[in-house]
Amino acid sequence: MFTAEVETLLEFLRFPSISTDPERQADVARCADWLVARLTASGLKTTLHPTAGHPIVIARNEHQPGRRTVMIYGHYDVQPVDPLELWDSPPFEPRIENGVVFARGSTDNKGQILAHILGIAGTLREKGELPVNLIVLVEGEEEIGSAHLEEFLTAHRHELRCDLIAISDTGMIAPGVPTFTYGLRGIGALELKVTGPATDLHSGIYGGAVANPATAVARLIGSLHDVDGRIAVPGFYDGVAPLEKWEREAWAKLPFSDADILAVTGSPALFGEAGYTSLERTWARPTAEVNGIGGGFQGIGTKTVLPREAFAKLTFRLVPGQEPDDVMAKVKAHLTAQCPAGVRLEITGGHAASPYVTDPTSPGGLAAQRALRTAFPGKDVALIREGGSIPIVNTFKRVLGVESLLLGLALPDCRAHAPNENFPLENFHAGIRLNRALLEELATAG
Amino acid sequence: MFTAEVETLLEFLRFPSISTDPERQADVARCADWLVARLTASGLKTTLHPTAGHPIVIARNEHQPGRRTVMIYGHYDVQPVDPLELWDSPPFEPRIENGVVFARGSTDNKGQILAHILGIAGTLREKGELPVNLIVLVEGEEEIGSAHLEEFLTAHRHELRCDLIAISDTGMIAPGVPTFTYGLRGIGALELKVTGPATDLHSGIYGGAVANPATAVARLIGSLHDVDGRIAVPGFYDGVAPLEKWEREAWAKLPFSDADILAVTGSPALFGEAGYTSLERTWARPTAEVNGIGGGFQGIGTKTVLPREAFAKLTFRLVPGQEPDDVMAKVKAHLTAQCPAGVRLEITGGHAASPYVTDPTSPGGLAAQRALRTAFPGKDVALIREGGSIPIVNTFKRVLGVESLLLGLALPDCRAHAPNENFPLENFHAGIRLNRALLEELATAG
Repeated sequence: MFTAEVETLLEFLRFPSISTDPERQADVARCADWLVARLTASGLKTTLHPTAGHPIVIARNEHQPGRRTVMIYGHYDVQPVDPLELWDSPPFEPRIENGVVFARGSTDNKGQILAHILGIAGTLREKGELPVNLIVLVEGEEEIGSAHLEEFLTAHRHELRCDLIAISDTGMIAPGVPTFTYGLRGIGALELKVTGPATDLHSGIYGGAVANPATAVARLIGSLHDVDGRIAVPGFYDGVAPLEKWEREAWAKLPFSDADILAVTGSPALFGEAGYTSLERTWARPTAEVNGIGGGFQGIGTKTVLPREAFAKLTFRLVPGQEPDDVMAKVKAHLTAQCPAGVRLEITGGHAASPYVTDPTSPGGLAAQRALRTAFPGKDVALIREGGSIPIVNTFKRVLGVESLLLGLALPDCRAHAPNENFPLENFHAGIRLNRALLEELATAG
Repeated sequence: MFTAEVETLLEFLRFPSISTDPERQADVARCADWLVARLTASGLKTTLHPTAGHPIVIARNEHQPGRRTVMIYGHYDVQPVDPLELWDSPPFEPRIENGVVFARGSTDNKGQILAHILGIAGTLREKGELPVNLIVLVEGEEEIGSAHLEEFLTAHRHELRCDLIAISDTGMIAPGVPTFTYGLRGIGALELKVTGPATDLHSGIYGGAVANPATAVARLIGSLHDVDGRIAVPGFYDGVAPLEKWEREAWAKLPFSDADILAVTGSPALFGEAGYTSLERTWARPTAEVNGIGGGFQGIGTKTVLPREAFAKLTFRLVPGQEPDDVMAKVKAHLTAQCPAGVRLEITGGHAASPYVTDPTSPGGLAAQRALRTAFPGKDVALIREGGSIPIVNTFKRVLGVESLLLGLALPDCRAHAPNENFPLENFHAGIRLNRALLEELATAG
């Protein structure tokens, strides 16, 4: 026997709402319908908005003039479950063990968005009204790049006008440590393809007389960094916002050490740009990473071939002060200039997202931190950035002109996107408390 | 209606003697039996020697004291035929068009070894005897690395004692130009594997704090050359025999230009070590080539992964003055020293072969050139090296202690190992003449 709140979570988790899988389309739709029923029953006016993909659920209370308008964003779609054989129990048959619920979507994002919804329902049940004008937006395509969200936001930008957005879809720095994420890195992607001879050549007959595309790709990648791990693209660091003194001091005290990173990654050693700690390197410094490289013979043993082509897939993480268009233009110019003789270089651009930073001492930021302290009594709030990119945050800023408060409840070992995804019920309940405190705080902030 | 010699060639070409294909084992055996019958009918004492793989055919005349002993080496096995759809006619139904026979094995090596066998048969038919003590060795595993040849040579080294070996399994520099190949490059192979984190990591979350194995592999490859294409491994060029003045002059006059290499390879431009022509780069200078490289995401689009490992397969072509053990030790030391921080490097050795060079002005070399002039009347003999490696030549030198004369009859467009392999009947008939002249010349040389 579980509490009604936990029973509701288990219901939500039983929908295999995998947005990328066409065979799950009906399950995704049933999950959206369930959400609509749940939000309606709480007393919110709820509508289901079809898109060319999966539907968007919008719920709102009766808005009153003169009150702050707050949007709570989340998503009801989940990642695929492969490899299924690595799960200890079926991903859509939630199992609770030692106070932790195991299921696909438990942490990303059903457990977290449902905590907000249940917090709202609780306030309405007890007080009959909310302290703010509320908009709940729950989409079904976050795991496939929020394909139709921007179009929807643009079409409904007047009804969706708000003062702030709160999102619980990031992480806590450590168990029990309330965490406010005030920055994210951006990203720029590109693929480079180097071609040489018309066909693979015999490396004995022609080796030495024509350039090897795999060697050229390697030399191009080698040109991206100096030996100390600093990026060697001219102008790459132009405008990069330096770390603030308070950030370096605060991060140094966080309960997440180099030893933790070594243990989590299994790397033989840490390595990165000289002059920065690991947290500084991943949160506040840009990178150039090879995501994939290939060319020539891929089988067992030796084949003495001089390959006709080779490729590399690169992504660059960007930080405040950098804009993808500018940085990627510099990267392309650098690669073009560095391309060895005797081959053709083709660069194709990929997706891009701007870095994001919000002021943690803004009225909204301070309100979020007070709410976190209420939800996690007696704990200091960790102010962090994260190394990944959450493009919707930029979309909200661009289309609606508002900042997002990132109040994540995931733990480092919640295994989002991986087998045995899980979410501690303690964090679920903290999330319910967090929502109630957050709406109170935002009602009076700024 | 073809001549008896051409009819015999067509018979030989009809055997699908693909040594690597277990389903062709009976065909390979029938081909060997056919050779035994053919050699026996010529008047040679012929034996079939089983091995753990395909049999070796040995034929000899009655050896007489005081005469030179000459071995003719060739192979009756052929390459696979894939991709079959690119053949204009079935590979084992030989077709003659404009004086060229098209069939798998026509140039490599059935057409060439049969020319020798028919030359021998003709001499015996006309004169009743040969001018030399002869050993014909035709193996059935050349295309799979002559797996059992060294063992056989070692076991029979006394019966196989000889003064010189003649092999027609290389190329002519251009149609109608008799060619003596006096040098081959050696080879050393290795594979390097770089490992980092225990699993693929999210490049946003961890990028910047741990080393990227694909970047490390690229930097290692980048360390192999300087920007001018010269190999940067310390000591790599130690002992490399400089090109002789006569070689550079002779090669400069050969009817094979940079434009030909561009046309054949389809490369956008030639590129190689500064200070050398293309022929010098491929025949007389060592190389470091990437045969294959891989790591991380290989699919379409972007996956923001920091890969757990990456690999590269490398081969180094070696020239006279270099020995594989020494050079490969230097390469491994260099790679180990250059390995970036934060990753593990594992290097595994592959096959190796020494470079080969024989003196073209030795008595045997001069005899071979006289025979080539007889077979191709009125033509100057081209003295060339080749960029590939023929390990059996070193095996013969090591086990039997004798030099090999390389008198190839293949043309650049004979497409050995490729669809539509072919051999001009003109070259076939020249090969018959070449054998008769060669045995005469070798009988009296040195």
